[in-house]
Amino acid sequence: MSILREDLVKKINWQLNAIIRGKPEKLYNASKHLIQSGGKRIRPILCLLSCEAVGGRIEDALNTAVALELIHTFTLIHDDIMDEDDLRRGSPSVHKVFGEKTAILAGDLLFSKAFEICDEKVKKILAKASVEICEGQEMDISFESRVEVSLDEYLEMIGKKTAVLFEASTSSGAILGGAERKMIENFENYGRNLGMAFQVYDDILGIIGEEGKLGKPVGSDIAQGKKSIVIIDAFKKLSGNEKNRFKEILMKRKNSKDEIQEALSLIEKSNAIENCKDKAKFYINNAKKSLIEIPGSDAKKSLIEIANFVVEREI
Amino acid sequence: MSILREDLVKKINWQLNAIIRGKPEKLYNASKHLIQSGGKRIRPILCLLSCEAVGGRIEDALNTAVALELIHTFTLIHDDIMDEDDLRRGSPSVHKVFGEKTAILAGDLLFSKAFEICDEKVKKILAKASVEICEGQEMDISFESRVEVSLDEYLEMIGKKTAVLFEASTSSGAILGGAERKMIENFENYGRNLGMAFQVYDDILGIIGEEGKLGKPVGSDIAQGKKSIVIIDAFKKLSGNEKNRFKEILMKRKNSKDEIQEALSLIEKSNAIENCKDKAKFYINNAKKSLIEIPGSDAKKSLIEIANFVVEREI
Repeated sequence: MSILREDLVKKINWQLNAIIRGKPEKLYNASKHLIQSGGKRIRPILCLLSCEAVGGRIEDALNTAVALELIHTFTLIHDDIMDEDDLRRGSPSVHKVFGEKTAILAGDLLFSKAFEICDEKVKKILAKASVEICEGQEMDISFESRVEVSLDEYLEMIGKKTAVLFEASTSSGAILGGAERKMIENFENYGRNLGMAFQVYDDILGIIGEEGKLGKPVGSDIAQGKKSIVIIDAFKKLSGNEKNRFKEILMKRKNSKDEIQEALSLIEKSNAIENCKDKAKFYINNAKKSLIEIPGSDAKKSLIEIANFVVEREI
Repeated sequence: MSILREDLVKKINWQLNAIIRGKPEKLYNASKHLIQSGGKRIRPILCLLSCEAVGGRIEDALNTAVALELIHTFTLIHDDIMDEDDLRRGSPSVHKVFGEKTAILAGDLLFSKAFEICDEKVKKILAKASVEICEGQEMDISFESRVEVSLDEYLEMIGKKTAVLFEASTSSGAILGGAERKMIENFENYGRNLGMAFQVYDDILGIIGEEGKLGKPVGSDIAQGKKSIVIIDAFKKLSGNEKNRFKEILMKRKNSKDEIQEALSLIEKSNAIENCKDKAKFYINNAKKSLIEIPGSDAKKSLIEIANFVVEREI
C-alpha cells in the first residue's frame, strides 16, 4: 500500500509506540493489541497531508494525527464489544484476548491519551467528532433490530459514525498547517466526502470482499442484521417473494451458510453492488472537486491518489 | 448538604442539563440517567471554589467544572459495567436500565462532551487525569483476584483512581482563576490529599455505612473481593484462624449474609475502622495545611469546610 506514503506511516507508528507505554502491563498490552495488528493509518495520513498541502510542517500536526488514530482505535475496540465481533484485522479482537473489562478500559485509555496529546487548537474539533461517532454508533445498533431503514437515515448514520472523523482529520491538519478559513472549508468538504465514500465502499467490501483480506467472515453484516447501504439498496430493489425471503434472512440471527449464500445471491440479482459503487464514486468526485482551489504539490497529489484508492481497494 | 454551596450546585446542574441534549434519544437518556439520580457535584464545586479563591470569576471555570463532573460520571458508568454493580445512588445503574451497549456509549459520549467543553488551557490536565483513572481502575480490578494487596499498592491505586481527578479539579480551577505556579501547587496538594481522604473514607462507609444512605448493599465490597483499605488493614491485623477465615470469605464470591456478617465482625475486632479513620484524617490535615498560604475568603472557608465534611459525611 505504497500509496499511503510509507515515510508518514513510519513516523506515525513510531509515535504511536512511544505514546502507548505505561503500567499496568495488561492494560497497555490490551491498548496496543489492535494498533499492532495493522491498520492503514488513513486518518493520521490525511491529517499530515492536509497540513503539508497548505504549507505546514509535518511536525506541527504529528501529535494530532496520532490522536486521530487513537480515537479511531478506541471506537473499534468498543464497537467490537458492542457488536460481539470476535475478529478484527484477522486477529482476535481486544475483548477476546484480554476480557471485556480490560477492553473497555483499553478503549478509554486510548481516548484519554488522544486528548492528552492533540493540539489545543483542534481539541474541540476532535471532541465534537467523538460525540457524533457515539451518536452514529447508537443509530447503527438501533438499526439492527429494525426491518427497514431509509437511505437518508443510513447516510446520517455513516455521516456521524465515519465521515466526521475523516473531516476532523483533514480540517485539523489544514488548521495546524496555518490555513485560512476559506481554505479549511475545502479540506472539510474533501474529508467529509472521502469519509462517506470510504464507508459506502466498506459496506460493499463487507459483501463482496475476500475473507482473507477483510480479516472477518464474509456475510457477517447479513448474519448480524446490519443495515449496510448494500442491504438497504437490495431491499428496495427486490419485490414479492424475494423481498420477503431477504427480510426473513436478515431478521434471523445466526444464519446458516446456505442462508447467507442465498441472501448474497439476492443482493447480486438486485444490482445493489453496482448502485452502491456509483454512490461511492459520487462522493469521491465531490471530494476531488473540493481540492480544486488547493495549489499543486506532492501532498495534493497524494490526497487525490487516496481518493482514488478508497473506491478501488480490496481491504 | 448546604456545605456544598447550593448556589454553585444550581449553576452546575443547569449547565449539565444544557450540555447533555441531543439525539438519538435513548443514548442521551442513558447519558443523563446517572447525573439526574443525584451526586454531590463535589469535583465541579472544588473547581469553582479554587477559581474563586484565587480571585477568578465563576464563569471562567464553569465549563471546565462541568467537564470534571462529566468525566467522573463517565468513569462511574463504565465502572458499574465492569464491576457488574446493579445499583448506584439507590437507582438501577445505567447498563441495567439501558443495556450494556448503550451504557458503554453513554460513558463515551459524556467523556467526549467533557473535552468539547473544557477550557483549552486545562485539557491536558483533564486528559492526563483520565489516563491515570483508567490505570487505577485496572489495578483495582486486578486486586480482586489477589489474596493480599499491600498498603502501598492500595495507595497508588486510589491515587490514580480517585485523587488525580480531585487534584485536576482544584488545580484547573486555580489555573482558570489566573493563579501563579507557586499558588497552583498549593491547590494541587489540597486536591490530591482531599481525594486520598475521600477514597479512604468512602471505603470506610462501604463497611459501616447505612444501606439506605449509601444507595448500595452493605458488604458489597466484601462479596466482590474488593481490596479496600479497611479490608487490607483488617487482614494485616488478624492472625491465625481468624486471618484464615477472613481470607476464605474474601476469596469466595457471592457470600451469604452470615458470611458477610462474620467478616464485618472480624473487621470490627481488628480495629481497622479506627486505623483507617486516622489515615483519612492524616490526609485531611495535609489538605488543610496546603491552604495556609491562600488569602482568606469565603471560598477558602468553603474549601476548609469541605475538607472537614469529607471525613464526617454519611454518604
